Amino acid sequence: MKTRLTEALGITCPVIQAPMAFAAGGALASAVSNAGGLGMIGGGYGDAGWIEQQFAIAAGARAGCGLITWKLAEQRHLLERVLALDPAAVFLSFGDPAPFAPAIRQAGVPLICQVQTLRDAQQALDCGADIIVAQGADAGGHGEARGTFALVPEIADEIARQNSQALLCAAGGITDGRGLAAALMLGADGAVIGTRFWASREALVHPRILDRALAATGDDTIRTRVVDVVRGLDWPGRYNVRVLRNPFIQKWHGAEDALQLEAGAEAAKWAAAQAAGDPDIATAITGEGIGMIRSAPPAGDILASLMTDAQQCLARAASAAGRASALT
Amino acid sequence: MKTRLTEALGITCPVIQAPMAFAAGGALASAVSNAGGLGMIGGGYGDAGWIEQQFAIAAGARAGCGLITWKLAEQRHLLERVLALDPAAVFLSFGDPAPFAPAIRQAGVPLICQVQTLRDAQQALDCGADIIVAQGADAGGHGEARGTFALVPEIADEIARQNSQALLCAAGGITDGRGLAAALMLGADGAVIGTRFWASREALVHPRILDRALAATGDDTIRTRVVDVVRGLDWPGRYNVRVLRNPFIQKWHGAEDALQLEAGAEAAKWAAAQAAGDPDIATAITGEGIGMIRSAPPAGDILASLMTDAQQCLARAASAAGRASALT
Repeated sequence: MKTRLTEALGITCPVIQAPMAFAAGGALASAVSNAGGLGMIGGGYGDAGWIEQQFAIAAGARAGCGLITWKLAEQRHLLERVLALDPAAVFLSFGDPAPFAPAIRQAGVPLICQVQTLRDAQQALDCGADIIVAQGADAGGHGEARGTFALVPEIADEIARQNSQALLCAAGGITDGRGLAAALMLGADGAVIGTRFWASREALVHPRILDRALAATGDDTIRTRVVDVVRGLDWPGRYNVRVLRNPFIQKWHGAEDALQLEAGAEAAKWAAAQAAGDPDIATAITGEGIGMIRSAPPAGDILASLMTDAQQCLARAASAAGRASALT
Repeated sequence: MKTRLTEALGITCPVIQAPMAFAAGGALASAVSNAGGLGMIGGGYGDAGWIEQQFAIAAGARAGCGLITWKLAEQRHLLERVLALDPAAVFLSFGDPAPFAPAIRQAGVPLICQVQTLRDAQQALDCGADIIVAQGADAGGHGEARGTFALVPEIADEIARQNSQALLCAAGGITDGRGLAAALMLGADGAVIGTRFWASREALVHPRILDRALAATGDDTIRTRVVDVVRGLDWPGRYNVRVLRNPFIQKWHGAEDALQLEAGAEAAKWAAAQAAGDPDIATAITGEGIGMIRSAPPAGDILASLMTDAQQCLARAASAAGRASALT
């Protein structure tokens, strides 16, 4: 399938795997890239040693690197180390990309800016982003309130006005071929897919946490600040995190101030549960699309079947359009 | 354009106009039906006299009637009066449809159930709904937290499992042909469209409030309970309302308890502003799609251009599928 995205990145599937912090290492990134998409290492909060290790694991497969922008701003030297790894792209999200855009562009590395509002899309276009990712609240992990469905076409219109060379990906709720086909209809050139690859053989997810998530429906997720409070992470107030509800989340959601008071003990408990994979306490970071996911096959198989399904959807559209024009 | 929805309802466009309380009267419903969709009168909280008046205004054009289910449960006799108007469909949302489904089905009237979660879709299928509307949080007006993008295909899967005769419409964020095409890709048979028709010549919206909304972006909307608190409406806690932010909303959002204490004075102020169309105090109930809407033409023109755009999107999909299959 050819779109402007596949042509710009030299890939065969218009799919970028989301750089999920902690879950997306070199094994996942290389599996996705080897299957025709663009794999990304989830650089997250910026542990340079871990990032270098994961690029080594990717072992020659093309891989981009994602970084949390406000965290990068606290350790600007990190960008140089990431660029030294020759990433296929740098993917910035959650903060102002302007201070970092010049170095990335100067290195000849595609700059992908994930945004959650129209205003941030305008800012990303201003600093020369090559690819805008319109991330809706439907997504797993950090994000904001705007929904994928209207955010994508509104940003598509803004790109058309401001810089029609920039490309657009949709993110948030895309788990299968239907979602990719819908993203293309909304004006995107491709999709950024997280949760579907979070539930893959290569993702760095504890099997007990994965098992719990595979039994969940989309109704079971919630946007909350609990997981940042318990980790002591100083996220800007505009962002929260979509996770799977479990007893720990149910207990503390809406009681974040009380959690802060008990943060020491609860943090230790949470960290131990995360290591042990206790699904009642540890956090599964998934989007609403988890309800359509029932198994965790290899990422390459996921991408292949997603592409087959997307082609079928697009062919159905062709037939609908045919019937439509037959009527006019 | 033919889909299972157009065939089931005998319409030519797979579009149902959302039965927006207060904004969707007989003029809007008849304009949409006359243009090939299915127009709906927003019966809302159930003022029988107003509903009968609006059916009279629709004057022979087919029109359905929407009702707020939990409010209908407080005045069950209303359903009989609505069914006596020979509605093209009854559209229930926000509550348990089970007590009303038998009478609607016995009258031979299609039952449309709008749901906001997978669980509610299962309930609606259990009581024999003909059409399920999967309404995402992206929508204007009352709703819940799940996003349109993943809710629609998850409910499509549930329908396939439970009753493949039931039809599915997507709602929330669909304002143009791109949105309709995307909804079809996600597995819907059509779309329920609110905000785009709210901003039409026939909608019952004060021109000053409309003007403010036409200048807004999708970033300017918010889900809040303020508008129910100030009206003294006893909505179940699971629902809130997407509206356009303005100084009144900004002042009281997050301070609903304080608003409740001053409800008398604030209610009078709000009601006066609503009548006068003061956009700083009165509420514009719009979805996130408002950011793609810049004018309020006749509803028939809106639907015609939406259908043309959707056909173009689907034809582009056809071409993408063609290129896709050429590669395989």
